Amino acid sequence: MHLTEYLFYRLHQLGVRSVFGCPGDFNLTSLDHLETCGLNWVGNTNELNAGKGISAIMTTLGVGELSAINALAGSSAELVPVIHIVGYPSTEAQRKGLPIHHTLGDGDFERFAKMSAQISSAVVILKDSSNATRIIDETILECCRSSKPVYIGLPMDLVRAEVDPSPLEHPLTAEKPAPNPIVEEESAVDLILSRLLVAQSPAIIVDSLANKPHIFESTRSFVESSGLPCFITPMAKGIIDETLPNFRGVYADKASQPFVLEDIQSCDLILNIGPRPTDINTAGFRTDMPHVETIKFEHGKITLLSEVVGLDASGVLFKLGDALHREGLESSPDSTAPRKLSHTPEESGSASSSSTPSSSLEGDSSLDFQTPVLDKSAPLTQDWVWERLSTWLREDDIIAADVGTSSFGTLWTRYPRGAVPLTQLLWCSIGYAVGAAVGAALAAREDKHQPKGLKRRTILLTGDGSLQMTAQEISTMVRRKLGVIIFVICNEGYTIERLINGPEAEYNDIQPWDYKLLPTTFQAEPGSAQTYAIHTQSELDMLLMDPSFGPEPIDDPPLRLVELHMPKLDAPESLRGTIDAIVRR
Amino acid sequence: MHLTEYLFYRLHQLGVRSVFGCPGDFNLTSLDHLETCGLNWVGNTNELNAGKGISAIMTTLGVGELSAINALAGSSAELVPVIHIVGYPSTEAQRKGLPIHHTLGDGDFERFAKMSAQISSAVVILKDSSNATRIIDETILECCRSSKPVYIGLPMDLVRAEVDPSPLEHPLTAEKPAPNPIVEEESAVDLILSRLLVAQSPAIIVDSLANKPHIFESTRSFVESSGLPCFITPMAKGIIDETLPNFRGVYADKASQPFVLEDIQSCDLILNIGPRPTDINTAGFRTDMPHVETIKFEHGKITLLSEVVGLDASGVLFKLGDALHREGLESSPDSTAPRKLSHTPEESGSASSSSTPSSSLEGDSSLDFQTPVLDKSAPLTQDWVWERLSTWLREDDIIAADVGTSSFGTLWTRYPRGAVPLTQLLWCSIGYAVGAAVGAALAAREDKHQPKGLKRRTILLTGDGSLQMTAQEISTMVRRKLGVIIFVICNEGYTIERLINGPEAEYNDIQPWDYKLLPTTFQAEPGSAQTYAIHTQSELDMLLMDPSFGPEPIDDPPLRLVELHMPKLDAPESLRGTIDAIVRR
Repeated sequence: MHLTEYLFYRLHQLGVRSVFGCPGDFNLTSLDHLETCGLNWVGNTNELNAGKGISAIMTTLGVGELSAINALAGSSAELVPVIHIVGYPSTEAQRKGLPIHHTLGDGDFERFAKMSAQISSAVVILKDSSNATRIIDETILECCRSSKPVYIGLPMDLVRAEVDPSPLEHPLTAEKPAPNPIVEEESAVDLILSRLLVAQSPAIIVDSLANKPHIFESTRSFVESSGLPCFITPMAKGIIDETLPNFRGVYADKASQPFVLEDIQSCDLILNIGPRPTDINTAGFRTDMPHVETIKFEHGKITLLSEVVGLDASGVLFKLGDALHREGLESSPDSTAPRKLSHTPEESGSASSSSTPSSSLEGDSSLDFQTPVLDKSAPLTQDWVWERLSTWLREDDIIAADVGTSSFGTLWTRYPRGAVPLTQLLWCSIGYAVGAAVGAALAAREDKHQPKGLKRRTILLTGDGSLQMTAQEISTMVRRKLGVIIFVICNEGYTIERLINGPEAEYNDIQPWDYKLLPTTFQAEPGSAQTYAIHTQSELDMLLMDPSFGPEPIDDPPLRLVELHMPKLDAPESLRGTIDAIVRR
Repeated sequence: MHLTEYLFYRLHQLGVRSVFGCPGDFNLTSLDHLETCGLNWVGNTNELNAGKGISAIMTTLGVGELSAINALAGSSAELVPVIHIVGYPSTEAQRKGLPIHHTLGDGDFERFAKMSAQISSAVVILKDSSNATRIIDETILECCRSSKPVYIGLPMDLVRAEVDPSPLEHPLTAEKPAPNPIVEEESAVDLILSRLLVAQSPAIIVDSLANKPHIFESTRSFVESSGLPCFITPMAKGIIDETLPNFRGVYADKASQPFVLEDIQSCDLILNIGPRPTDINTAGFRTDMPHVETIKFEHGKITLLSEVVGLDASGVLFKLGDALHREGLESSPDSTAPRKLSHTPEESGSASSSSTPSSSLEGDSSLDFQTPVLDKSAPLTQDWVWERLSTWLREDDIIAADVGTSSFGTLWTRYPRGAVPLTQLLWCSIGYAVGAAVGAALAAREDKHQPKGLKRRTILLTGDGSLQMTAQEISTMVRRKLGVIIFVICNEGYTIERLINGPEAEYNDIQPWDYKLLPTTFQAEPGSAQTYAIHTQSELDMLLMDPSFGPEPIDDPPLRLVELHMPKLDAPESLRGTIDAIVRR
């Protein structure tokens, strides 16, 4: 078997079906092997956009890989596993230090790998075929373990080197951490249970590191089985089903909805799972509450007031959920046990649950999301739009929200069960979501386990400044017939920057485009794209209620591009709150 | 004076008028100071494109700088001085290692500077205001000296730090290397003169490092005053006036025009100035001729058969030119002195020079460029187009030729006096020329020393695959009213890659666009853009002869976008020759 085929079969075993990138002379011959291995080539318009998808990207030395490096750095920050395969000149040319094109001409072929090392969890340049399959396997495993990009340099003369295919018989699986002694877990469970029993208003805050494989399932299980009031941080959106009865909202200090802030401030015990206290996730590092007893669940340790009380966060969460579930069953409905224990999953699972939230957490009328009040002639405003989307979104929607008013506006949009949000709240590279939508739409189409009935939708929410960064990826959507639903906020530039500095400064302006012309410019086939320009609330309302607009009933749904015209200084409250907090700090 | 103003005044002193980039939260406050310092903000659609201009670029930490890093690596490879100013969070946030957005969240604020260090000649992150102006000055000087990018990290809290403006009274000038002892120069001049006197067919080959400041003027002077037959390498295009009577063409082994190859092969002495033997510049390292006596002029050394015979290449070239000039004056027109000495600048300067080239170098009928023979119904072909442009181009044109058929096709296009070619034959990052054209057109408009009469034109020659990489920079042309003349080769994808591997492979295809719609999509004002679709030789001929198409007589010339439709496997002979040579190697 050729070395490249080995690599591609490994990708296929991991579920990769589409490979992103652009052809370049140092990766051309390896591209010849994609089809044999059951992989599809996406063919992006440039590597910056390609890297903003997921899973596997192939570039060429220097020019290609550096165009993708911002996107890969984003994957590193946001903990997205990406296997980056870079086509290299032959090992002989490297050994001789030849001044070859796509280099600085100085004979140094390791410069670019060194640059990627700053943002990757593993970087290798394959040197010969003798141990290449072992190195490939180790690098891919490191990608799975770290949930960050890895880099594999593939020299042209090794593309068709013969290798032993037998390791492929054993698909790669990231080993699980050895479980800790049961006695240690039991003591942690007992300790935490005792705290929960005396607390008046305990709550869970799920943060973004709960998304990591070692703790993801136990976190979701714990939230459901405990029935405790559950908040998420901005970066954790998507981890917890927002339609659960004990879901309470997104907490980020002043960037929270008022009722969320009030609820959290009255808590006396917080179980904080997977904390990642970045500036935006904490509204300027303001979410820490030293006066509230907080138990933190992290990878390999559980801490209470800085004291380690357990090691296996995942195991403890499962056991804790079980224990709370049992206690809930034992306590009668009219028991005087603390509220959180009477709030069992059975009860909360029923639509007309008789369990009432404790005083501090009641009265969340805004949790019953309804279409916001419609003012027919009223212009679109950010907060109206984001709330309006709450009732239009559907189960299993993929929602790529670009950095800016979209990523912040959707924080308060209630997402349906199974929704997959894609955004960047740490790396914050505008234009990210356009590429992410391409990747997600391809992945959804390739997913054989799609829900029955209506097809899964990919929805792109972006701003005009963001879209201009990576607009040509709409061409990739046209080329690959990805019927993404695109909403473009047309508000004359970088609104998020206007809130920080220079609200009327020319540097925050952009050239206005006629975005509706993009599908035609990219030569979408007749009937394969629909465009709309929306200026008022009633226009958007009518569009979203139009049965021909939203559903995805056919094999190749049309691309839909909706311009949402809004005032340039209008911004979602969540964004204003975050920026106020960060700037004040 | 504020620190940022100091930096901006320094840029202004260096002739910078336009600053490229995108706004980001860490550079916003510094942008406020541009106007005060007489600088204009370009406002690119993304940093990848911004970096492809020249001179000064401002980005924001992480997301912005990494989007620009491919472009800056190109500047490093191609020896273009660029001052890259990166907005950083406050020094306090850095010191505390806060997990701030636009970072990986790990408190490491030096990662991205380390990445840029791989492609920059100096990298600094300013730490306090006390020595900041000295560091800025040293970094800018290093940029001038190295002719490569430098990197200045500017923390937000230093933007308005007070500094002493007095160093601005002395504009920065890169020190010149101390001249070497005259005696040493004299001996080198004598030695080289003696070789020239016995040579039957000497020639000059000017290579791209002759473009560096220390040797540029002396090279041009030497070529003109010596009157010796002069060839250039592909990367040296633009250094020597191609209308000089002793200009002979572009030499790159099999990638040369046949008469050039024949001429070079009959030489018995070569003066090689500023050699840069990269793969493309030498058609796969095939231009070295060990059997021909070669004298190399490099920075700080002159070598003959690996023996150093002089140190001051620039000084020796000036003296050598003077000596040859004198000898030429002394020899009578019917002298029996070797041809090259009778071929004086006076004679060659006259239109009807009586000096005839030596047998090996005569008969260059193709040097009398004429409009190629026109076949009215014939489809456009690459070689026809590139030759046709030779007679359409005008003095002082700026010609940005993108990597691919354009960069290779224009090698054989004869450029007029004063032409400024912009291309990348080492870094070879497709899409480069779109950004380069933006930068060049702005620089031309800002140049107060423009030639009288017709305005200087900026011409962009690009392919469809290249344009798709960076197409949104046409929006910047529209926004800043840059009347660039754009020729887009529409040939269904990456033709240069098709010649290397996979001529019919799907990965070398692209989505066809209607490029003519781009100005409308970018909302060019009515009348400010003209578009054309050209399929045949006669159509292009008529367009180029149309007096309303080419000239630049008005203040704001329209943008002109011309689609040139050509067969997808057609390629210029120069490109075929280069690829054959490199692939064979």
